[in-house]
Amino acid sequence: MSKEFRPPRGFRDFPPEIMILRKSLISKLENVFKKYGFDPLDTPSVEYWETLSGKYGEEAENRLIWRFKDPWSEREYALRYDLTVPLARFISSHLDLQMPFKRYQIGPVWRHEEPQKGRYREFYQCDADIVGSPYPEADAEMINLIIDAVKSLGFESGFDVRINDRRLLSGIFEQELNIKSPITIYRIIDKLDKIGIDNVKKELSQLLNNDVVEKIIDLISMKGKPNEIVENIDKKYGKNTLVKNAYDHLNEMLGLVNNKDKVVIDLSLVRGLDYYTGPIYEVVLKEPKIGSVSGGGRYDNLAGIFSGKQIPATGGSIGIERIIDAGLELGIYNLDKKTFTEIQIIFIEEETFKYAWDVANLLRFNGYNVKIDLNRSKEDQQRKKANKLKIPLLIFVGKKEKETNTVTIYNTKTNERINVNISEIAVKIKNLI
Amino acid sequence: MSKEFRPPRGFRDFPPEIMILRKSLISKLENVFKKYGFDPLDTPSVEYWETLSGKYGEEAENRLIWRFKDPWSEREYALRYDLTVPLARFISSHLDLQMPFKRYQIGPVWRHEEPQKGRYREFYQCDADIVGSPYPEADAEMINLIIDAVKSLGFESGFDVRINDRRLLSGIFEQELNIKSPITIYRIIDKLDKIGIDNVKKELSQLLNNDVVEKIIDLISMKGKPNEIVENIDKKYGKNTLVKNAYDHLNEMLGLVNNKDKVVIDLSLVRGLDYYTGPIYEVVLKEPKIGSVSGGGRYDNLAGIFSGKQIPATGGSIGIERIIDAGLELGIYNLDKKTFTEIQIIFIEEETFKYAWDVANLLRFNGYNVKIDLNRSKEDQQRKKANKLKIPLLIFVGKKEKETNTVTIYNTKTNERINVNISEIAVKIKNLI
Repeated sequence: MSKEFRPPRGFRDFPPEIMILRKSLISKLENVFKKYGFDPLDTPSVEYWETLSGKYGEEAENRLIWRFKDPWSEREYALRYDLTVPLARFISSHLDLQMPFKRYQIGPVWRHEEPQKGRYREFYQCDADIVGSPYPEADAEMINLIIDAVKSLGFESGFDVRINDRRLLSGIFEQELNIKSPITIYRIIDKLDKIGIDNVKKELSQLLNNDVVEKIIDLISMKGKPNEIVENIDKKYGKNTLVKNAYDHLNEMLGLVNNKDKVVIDLSLVRGLDYYTGPIYEVVLKEPKIGSVSGGGRYDNLAGIFSGKQIPATGGSIGIERIIDAGLELGIYNLDKKTFTEIQIIFIEEETFKYAWDVANLLRFNGYNVKIDLNRSKEDQQRKKANKLKIPLLIFVGKKEKETNTVTIYNTKTNERINVNISEIAVKIKNLI
Repeated sequence: MSKEFRPPRGFRDFPPEIMILRKSLISKLENVFKKYGFDPLDTPSVEYWETLSGKYGEEAENRLIWRFKDPWSEREYALRYDLTVPLARFISSHLDLQMPFKRYQIGPVWRHEEPQKGRYREFYQCDADIVGSPYPEADAEMINLIIDAVKSLGFESGFDVRINDRRLLSGIFEQELNIKSPITIYRIIDKLDKIGIDNVKKELSQLLNNDVVEKIIDLISMKGKPNEIVENIDKKYGKNTLVKNAYDHLNEMLGLVNNKDKVVIDLSLVRGLDYYTGPIYEVVLKEPKIGSVSGGGRYDNLAGIFSGKQIPATGGSIGIERIIDAGLELGIYNLDKKTFTEIQIIFIEEETFKYAWDVANLLRFNGYNVKIDLNRSKEDQQRKKANKLKIPLLIFVGKKEKETNTVTIYNTKTNERINVNISEIAVKIKNLI
């Protein structure tokens, strides 16, 4: 196949059966966002380079952001890299917004990744953020939303919600263990799931002395029910103000979280992004092992970055692409629905085409999704095409039907066949669909 | 305001009240597409430059397409310019698709235009196309769909559907009037609405002799009900085969078009794009005068362009951006709906927050869209915020309510206030929303 036939490497076409699945999942997700009082916002796909520059760290800045020049003005642009920095830009130019401002945004972002299974250069992000509240109830609402979202997408039980707090980490790492550049250490810990505890230890040993490494390994091995862990930390580091603040905030937040049986406090959770400042969380499926399908946290220094104000914020993201892959793998989803069409009109002879056409339009007028052959196909061809698309109802229209002002409805699920007068057709079909 | 606060010139942020309107209109449109048996397709925002190059004419090629280089591979890319060429690319790599393939696609396209009122560098296109049928019934279905779409978006009557056929034009212009480069002439005629008949005549006179100019002016002045016009053309040019084919096809098509009272045959309609080969059509609002809000036509040489096969196709587009502008101007639409939230929970004292929180979650569990204050605001602040967003139901929760396991529901539309037991709340609210 010649290359200009293909989408660019790392980009995808979505044929109808995949779009039908994607749309149904996105619509479920949107309903959850709305239930929690979030409203939609959209920002452009393209931003000025200055807007994104300096926000995402070195790798994004130098390699992952799709950055390009306008040949006519030499102005530099970039395709948006996530939905959070554009939100911060939006906030800065709308400081009169009612706070907290709760918005959701669902749309593509672009990253110049090396394409591989499950990693694309254009993929959807589904974000919800609460801007303007510093309180634990905002974090709790985000966690409840995320649990509800993952459930509503069909993952009723097979997941854990891992929770940690960046202040716990900085209180312990920076103040108690005197580590100067904790981000480097977080990045190593972040690889725990991939490389295992022994390799984390090895990497840490190259940077820190043994005593500190042991304390870190002890710390990041703490994983369990909230009350146990919090008590344990209190014993060891409870005098540190940051740690104290963190676990007061966590305790208050956890008091408002539903589905506590799913919650695990996990001190090894650091999350890659630099900008978190408070509680962080992610949802991990038990099967398949594909990393987190949702995550987020509090970031009190980013939302106001363009305006020079401090604006507290907390937010999370549902990883719809991974969820689709996982759902298909687990058989929770399938691609069986090939069309939205509910009814295929089949004309038996070409002379009855006009009558069939009128029936199609009558049903459309009544709100049904209807196909009628546009290629002057023979009756058996029309049937074959409809069956291949698994259209549930077939309506046959021949001379007999035309003469008697009727149609013959065939229900492919029950194999029932009924002859119905045109005047009753809409009502009859309502009971069949 | 510093420039990195703004979206790039010609790009837009859409705050919730605009998104809520846009989403409701796009959802109506999608329902119409589905009613006519179309299914969704999505293609990437980014294409290889070679895929788009040579498809859109000189201005697009040299100025309007957002074209850029990947600095790491020197590969050239472009942001998609429309949804039709990507469809053709998709078709070429899926030749086993069931034909006719009826797809809709709704999404942004990018054009490097000089921004002005109603013209943006990123805007939505809403396209439906039928690939694989050469027959008039496919064109008729497109026209019926377009009329239905414009109606469903709230423009019940104030519009005309103008119809012409490219074969009529080529039969007369190329064969009867012996014009060698008709595209140049079409481009002049295309400006008729903007510059008026006298200026069209003037421009034509610079290229053609008076006799031919007179015939063209006579021709493009033909506008009216299908039967009159078709007869008139038949008398003058009926012996030309292309003309004959065109009006046979048109006649058959018009026999299947609903709302014939809206249809006008208009020989001055040429439509800008070079690729049309048969019937062409557009929908023009009577007010405001903003050009066409929908249009399309048959293009039998484009869908197969990547595969080297001839694949007949016909399709149309709904100009959602212009429709929104027109609808707002005419007062058909407004931006009054500021939130999807249906219920605001108001806690009267901070001590009742947890009880209020549980009520919020109970209602969410029952499918309602619910906000609860996350900023520990006083009761009057909570009320003010809810009123500003015009949230229809307020649920008050105070000590009295907590003690009696009730809530007080206040309906802002009727000013009714009722006290309801928690166990009945979901049912009671169902009747109020």
